[in-house]
Amino acid sequence: MVSSTQIQLINRPAGWPTQDDFRTVTVELPDLAGDQVRVVNEFTSVDPYMRGRMNDVKSYIPPFVLGETMTGGAVGRVVESTADSHPVGSVVVHDLGWRDVAQGDASAFRVVEEIPGVPVSAYLGILGLTGLTAYVGLLHIAHMKPGDSVFISGAAGAVGTAAGQIARLEGASRVLGSAGSAEKVALLTDRYGYDIALDYKAAPIRKQLLEVAGDGIDVYFDNVGGDHLEAALAAMRNGGRAALCGAIAGYNATERVPGPDNMMNIISRGLTLQGFTLGNYTHVFPEFAAKMGPWLASGDVVHDETVVEGIENSVDAFLQLMRGGNVGKMLVKV
Amino acid sequence: MVSSTQIQLINRPAGWPTQDDFRTVTVELPDLAGDQVRVVNEFTSVDPYMRGRMNDVKSYIPPFVLGETMTGGAVGRVVESTADSHPVGSVVVHDLGWRDVAQGDASAFRVVEEIPGVPVSAYLGILGLTGLTAYVGLLHIAHMKPGDSVFISGAAGAVGTAAGQIARLEGASRVLGSAGSAEKVALLTDRYGYDIALDYKAAPIRKQLLEVAGDGIDVYFDNVGGDHLEAALAAMRNGGRAALCGAIAGYNATERVPGPDNMMNIISRGLTLQGFTLGNYTHVFPEFAAKMGPWLASGDVVHDETVVEGIENSVDAFLQLMRGGNVGKMLVKV
Repeated sequence: MVSSTQIQLINRPAGWPTQDDFRTVTVELPDLAGDQVRVVNEFTSVDPYMRGRMNDVKSYIPPFVLGETMTGGAVGRVVESTADSHPVGSVVVHDLGWRDVAQGDASAFRVVEEIPGVPVSAYLGILGLTGLTAYVGLLHIAHMKPGDSVFISGAAGAVGTAAGQIARLEGASRVLGSAGSAEKVALLTDRYGYDIALDYKAAPIRKQLLEVAGDGIDVYFDNVGGDHLEAALAAMRNGGRAALCGAIAGYNATERVPGPDNMMNIISRGLTLQGFTLGNYTHVFPEFAAKMGPWLASGDVVHDETVVEGIENSVDAFLQLMRGGNVGKMLVKV
Repeated sequence: MVSSTQIQLINRPAGWPTQDDFRTVTVELPDLAGDQVRVVNEFTSVDPYMRGRMNDVKSYIPPFVLGETMTGGAVGRVVESTADSHPVGSVVVHDLGWRDVAQGDASAFRVVEEIPGVPVSAYLGILGLTGLTAYVGLLHIAHMKPGDSVFISGAAGAVGTAAGQIARLEGASRVLGSAGSAEKVALLTDRYGYDIALDYKAAPIRKQLLEVAGDGIDVYFDNVGGDHLEAALAAMRNGGRAALCGAIAGYNATERVPGPDNMMNIISRGLTLQGFTLGNYTHVFPEFAAKMGPWLASGDVVHDETVVEGIENSVDAFLQLMRGGNVGKMLVKV
């Protein structure tokens, strides 16, 4: 028998998640039925949106089910197959999440191409839903146009590093970003092509942003919420558009967090704030992939990963992500 | 010599405006030059947006100039003219605001038709920018579609009474509204065709709205901001759209007012919040007028006015409006 080690959610966290909210189980896997595959995962993804799914709230995306294995992006290799479409050795991407071995109907696994020089983990990040999130938010939600001035919060994260580079390649006049350390801020300008980077721990972000925003920003890509959204509302130009993608500042709050104190600017400046989750925008994937593939191949886009080893350390990896202890995409190497 | 009594802003109010922030002046008017008109106003308009213009803030619409006469909508009759296009006796609409006699280049005055059975004051309300505001917010900002469930705050005001009726005529499945007294709430359902009306002074609006919102609301038309916007974010359905038109709850605050504590719903439910000021949407006027004219003539739309007598009472009228002491359009009868 083959076994699979899996991480399950057993409590809905109040505030910061702890190890006690999860358990590790080992499951014996049955033999494959017809049209099925068994996959040994190489990498699993931990993402900020997962914190929201740990709560029991109304959303486009349903909450995680208590007592079941955490779902989420993963990439691995087929080791056994009864499906002609998925031969042994294929690299596949799937959503079965935090487990070392995954198996099931072949239709739940998408075979992807191995690209020379690009690690398969890229399918969880820059070539996957992370890159798509950045692309959709900038171009399909905030409708960024060439010449726009763009501000991105959480800029050193997986989505932020992608969004900054996409904004530049799509013709933004200036790309501003914020992150939570001097090291990250240096990476933003030195490696990811940001024009200006702000360390939000050094001084209030609203004050810092207003000092550098010049005539104001046209597009805001929000990964943080809270004080960052407030700063953006203060710095936005008439007709500005904000894509609300994440609000990590409030994800682990145990009390209700008040919103921006300058909502009035939305009216007086004719601003648009639009939230999104990716489920409604998967149809954009081909358009995105057609651009991102060449950008990666040419080196116009770079990407980084922060990797934690061992499926048993998935919760640690997730907590490290919540604390901002990553640059680029946060992954668990199985 | 002919004189004109005018009300001027002399201080930018901190918090609630007072009489001391204004002065009344009498100005001697010169003889008309070529292509000019002199107009005796019949009605002048006081509107919530004027409070924002009393502050010195960045906006699509510039602040009022200190020491100059308050501008704003007015309707009157030409008593002297050197412009063939504007014969004596014509009814004209203009933006010269709080004065009993207005004069200037004819191009600043728009000649309108007198409609039997409709008072000329309608051009400041249901047939003017007020009606247009309701129409633009519902259909061009929030993109209301037939079958949508609609919630409107400040529903007994000039914009709110128009918006509720337009929503119904454009096919909303349900029209919900809020107002600040039992009398207003009764008018909403009995006279303005609202399906459900809530008295926000009777209990927290968030609790009340969630109790009656059923499957949730698709479109929110915001005249109030603050707790009403928070209530709407709690009650909105996936993909909901909010048109932010006014935020009277915070106009006279002297301290910063925190925003909604549930901004996260914007992301998880994929909501869109868009603010607007009418200056960018005047091109919609012909489309609006082509619908509103017949609606008024047929009695499908009703409208009411709260009238204060005497140009010298303009500030009182404005303060009464700020306190919600009006049903329908607030006007000064000159």
